[in-house]
Amino acid sequence: MTSRFDFQIAATDGAARTGTITMQRGTIRTPAFMPVGTAATVKAMKPADVRAGGADIILGNTYHLMLRPTAERIDRLGGLHKFMGWDRPILTDSGGYQVMSLSELTKRSEEGVVFKSHLDGSRHLMSPERSMEIQRLLGSDIVMAFDELVPTDTTRDIQAKAMERSMRWAKRSREGFDSGEAHAARAALFGIQQGALDEGLRKTSADALIDIGFDGYAIGGLAVGEGQEAMFGVLDYAPGQLPADKPRYLMGVGKPDDIVGAVERGVDMFDCVMPTRSGRTGQAFTREGPINIRNARFAEDTGPLDPECRCPACQGWSRAYIHHLVRAGEILGAMLMTEHNLFFYQALMADLRDAIAGGALKTFANDFRARYIREKQQ
Amino acid sequence: MTSRFDFQIAATDGAARTGTITMQRGTIRTPAFMPVGTAATVKAMKPADVRAGGADIILGNTYHLMLRPTAERIDRLGGLHKFMGWDRPILTDSGGYQVMSLSELTKRSEEGVVFKSHLDGSRHLMSPERSMEIQRLLGSDIVMAFDELVPTDTTRDIQAKAMERSMRWAKRSREGFDSGEAHAARAALFGIQQGALDEGLRKTSADALIDIGFDGYAIGGLAVGEGQEAMFGVLDYAPGQLPADKPRYLMGVGKPDDIVGAVERGVDMFDCVMPTRSGRTGQAFTREGPINIRNARFAEDTGPLDPECRCPACQGWSRAYIHHLVRAGEILGAMLMTEHNLFFYQALMADLRDAIAGGALKTFANDFRARYIREKQQ
Repeated sequence: MTSRFDFQIAATDGAARTGTITMQRGTIRTPAFMPVGTAATVKAMKPADVRAGGADIILGNTYHLMLRPTAERIDRLGGLHKFMGWDRPILTDSGGYQVMSLSELTKRSEEGVVFKSHLDGSRHLMSPERSMEIQRLLGSDIVMAFDELVPTDTTRDIQAKAMERSMRWAKRSREGFDSGEAHAARAALFGIQQGALDEGLRKTSADALIDIGFDGYAIGGLAVGEGQEAMFGVLDYAPGQLPADKPRYLMGVGKPDDIVGAVERGVDMFDCVMPTRSGRTGQAFTREGPINIRNARFAEDTGPLDPECRCPACQGWSRAYIHHLVRAGEILGAMLMTEHNLFFYQALMADLRDAIAGGALKTFANDFRARYIREKQQ
Repeated sequence: MTSRFDFQIAATDGAARTGTITMQRGTIRTPAFMPVGTAATVKAMKPADVRAGGADIILGNTYHLMLRPTAERIDRLGGLHKFMGWDRPILTDSGGYQVMSLSELTKRSEEGVVFKSHLDGSRHLMSPERSMEIQRLLGSDIVMAFDELVPTDTTRDIQAKAMERSMRWAKRSREGFDSGEAHAARAALFGIQQGALDEGLRKTSADALIDIGFDGYAIGGLAVGEGQEAMFGVLDYAPGQLPADKPRYLMGVGKPDDIVGAVERGVDMFDCVMPTRSGRTGQAFTREGPINIRNARFAEDTGPLDPECRCPACQGWSRAYIHHLVRAGEILGAMLMTEHNLFFYQALMADLRDAIAGGALKTFANDFRARYIREKQQ
């Protein structure tokens, strides 16, 4: 029988590592990018095409799924994998971020959070125990602890209190996860480090999580508007505060150059809506930076979205055609843009893994940055 | 070299026929259903999946394409086939129907029609000559003559005048088409019979078209709200007024039972937005009639959209999942519904062809009607 959760580092290069996570539903090559499948679908993509792009694992959103179609319904229908037709690993977030950013909070206490659904205004309780229950009902492979978020521009005292509560909730998450024995026997649980931009708080948080013990460790509370410089500032020390023999997951990151810099600093896993969401609005990633395909300069451009890309969209259709589709609001435009962007991200991860394995990450990263213009060219 | 346009009837059964149209870009099995690719895309589908569903030919809309991205741009980009990635035959309509139904007409005369774009209010002239030019620029394989439409509930005098003008325009269409020699050497031109619900006008129109001479003959002016009974009333005589050795095309039809009845009456080709458009709004076709997948009764239905369907959507996903996707407004919902509906239509056409070839059309059609409930079940 395949192990429940086994992380093997095949090679390191500076702080960066490449390896594999082996789970019952499949192997995850790291550094890994997880496409976001919010509402039981990676938007505008069939699962087979997500896989063909190179994804070993996708992310599902607890908050969205608990509200529609509900975790209980997904459980009755055989779990999230069967429901959406993806048989490889799924990581589910805890719901905490969306509860606090998308819904109207009506109560926040040590017990948990009461919130109103953004869909119909109905009231729901979210707590560490409930989050574990929902992720179990979904049939998640990698379950995230439920934590409390505060903005990075609040006071150190507020950040410290939120971090401390998050650590108490991490322990309750561990207990809640372990109580679901059949699920715990095959799934993994990740803790989430908090502490905003404060190295001391980050260290306290890391130690508390290590004391509880998790299969992997996420770096939370970043990519919330603090900017790349501040984020990299935290990533200069945060990964080193976490166990070297466990995967490190930077939640909600990011742009391609964010990922390159985070991998250089020792991060193993990423998720972000960037390739899917921005694809639907007309932003295509290329080796030279993102382009806005709606721009008039692409109206008669017969080249592919990215001349160096080998994705199906770039093999089959021109910038001119996709420009037309996106301008006309055609669904196929969203499909082709998403397919390309996901493929671009996965190709970047493959390049990063190869560079680390070959001891050439610094050269690769510098070459990447020399060409890549972060901001969208109009 | 493959022939320009060769229609061979392999078998007949009553008034119905099955055969093939051979053109340079491919063979069309008849009776044929042509998915509608309005704006250079069959909405929510990749061309390879349209083909995998069984389509031999698709339809492009002259009106939409002339406005965006314009026929001239498509010509500069190498033609519609290359632009959208479909290398088999494309039939283009004349633009007449959309000019008169979607745009604001500013002038209607013997010369043609001046109209305002529904996109930006810009003014355009449409005439038989301009329609032929646009369809040539698009690189159409089957070009439709430009005609004038009037509602079926107008007076016989109005209908007669519109039909007579359409026959003059048919002659100008023939001349315009023939003047594009390189295109005319590989493409086909169809005339369109008019005459509303009047057998005498239909006969006059048919004779005028035959006198001009076309590769195929469309039955126009139906499926515009007159109802199935009135439409079948015309189809009881109209196909017989047209040459037996040329394809007959019923424009804009229709629901599955409309198609069955029209095939029984001798029609060879169809197009309709029904499978694509209704798929995007939640209507799925089944052997027992259409269902509204948004209905709460499908929320935990683990069966496929249609238990007898072999399409990819029915092989991979449940009604419960697609119900969730469509309710959540997910693009994948539109993709799976469209794929299923197009597959359903093409499977029906294949069944009709087989039934005609086997001399069993009447049995097939009666069995179909005995099960199929035309109106959507809520």
